[in-house]
Amino acid sequence: MNIILASTSTLFGGQYLEYLKPELVNLFEGITEIIFIPFARPGGISHDDYTQKAKDFFSTININVKGLHEFEDKIEAVNSAQGFFTGGGNTFLLVKTLHELGLMNVLKQNIESEKPYLGCSAGSNIGGVNMKTTNDMPIVYPPSFDCMGLIPFNINPHYLDPNPEIKHNGETRETRIKEFLTQNDIKVVGLREGNWIRRIGNRVTTEGAELTRIFEKGKEPYEVDPGTEL
Amino acid sequence: MNIILASTSTLFGGQYLEYLKPELVNLFEGITEIIFIPFARPGGISHDDYTQKAKDFFSTININVKGLHEFEDKIEAVNSAQGFFTGGGNTFLLVKTLHELGLMNVLKQNIESEKPYLGCSAGSNIGGVNMKTTNDMPIVYPPSFDCMGLIPFNINPHYLDPNPEIKHNGETRETRIKEFLTQNDIKVVGLREGNWIRRIGNRVTTEGAELTRIFEKGKEPYEVDPGTEL
Repeated sequence: MNIILASTSTLFGGQYLEYLKPELVNLFEGITEIIFIPFARPGGISHDDYTQKAKDFFSTININVKGLHEFEDKIEAVNSAQGFFTGGGNTFLLVKTLHELGLMNVLKQNIESEKPYLGCSAGSNIGGVNMKTTNDMPIVYPPSFDCMGLIPFNINPHYLDPNPEIKHNGETRETRIKEFLTQNDIKVVGLREGNWIRRIGNRVTTEGAELTRIFEKGKEPYEVDPGTEL
Repeated sequence: MNIILASTSTLFGGQYLEYLKPELVNLFEGITEIIFIPFARPGGISHDDYTQKAKDFFSTININVKGLHEFEDKIEAVNSAQGFFTGGGNTFLLVKTLHELGLMNVLKQNIESEKPYLGCSAGSNIGGVNMKTTNDMPIVYPPSFDCMGLIPFNINPHYLDPNPEIKHNGETRETRIKEFLTQNDIKVVGLREGNWIRRIGNRVTTEGAELTRIFEKGKEPYEVDPGTEL
């Protein structure tokens, strides 16, 4: 496999995908066109406008972008594609749409047969075993929480450290992930913004400037350096 | 109906349920025993310990508490109860457990036949039409997101205003609720901590010290004063 699962598309104060540019040149080497999957986006921006945003960025590295929503036969479009990018938004909406259109497994098979894949945020969640560690609000009911399992763990994108100054009784991110581990025995990778998971063949590493926080059942959470193999 | 749906059980720096004490004396007037529903709690504290916490508070207003997990026949226990309290935790786990045990509708029927009900956080979410505006992580997959609909709207507990200082690309609470409204036409009541919904008969009001933020499809969000009828 040849994939990047990024915590976020955009760093604070930065431009869309800009911080990942050198990585994306490498990920999509030899590829002239990718399919953009805009289905996570619930509003505010249309699928066309969202695809345009991806198109604008990828034109700077000479890659054409087509939105998957434009195709009548979406399964055929995925099977014919050279590579993929799934943008962020609401993971429940993305997973519901992919399952309902019969695309989750088709996409998985295409990625497993070496087509490059980029996911950001919700698009990274679907690379995990299931979507049970998303931060998103359950605005729709998907037929299943199962995802592609491109890596043998789950991702928590936009991982946020507890803020001791907040006078609020909502659970911290760490508490939520520990609660996930009371019900599931799946490793969770807390990806801080600016970090990503890189898989090349069978080698899976954490990348980016920040440490990555790992949660496993029955262990204290621990931090790993950029470049650590998972 | 005679219900309180509270944003939180505990104010920052306060004791469990203390801020609601005068309200609870009123809600449970004439009641000698209630059933506590501990199923939202995924770990850290057992159902027994969680029930003991409720018991300790309610002993100060001369009400006995039994945990629903203690009963072999839980449906019979709900049908025989004088009143109910559902504690907070993870809404996905709570809703899954109630549906799987066949308790969601039984509880609803008992509350609709005038037995008093207190919900906090996850316990308030289940008073809404569905759980699609919870803040919780989807750590388990419930057979349905439908809830009791004790009120004709959804609640977002622990409602948090956007913090302009956070340099983070996760969605704000307001963004999430607006995304819910792109997929659903159900009013959402953003309950800040310290606020609660009171229903007596057919009269539903917002209560507590803070303004309450209301979200409706096709309208700008707006604030209402404590005591406003919804």
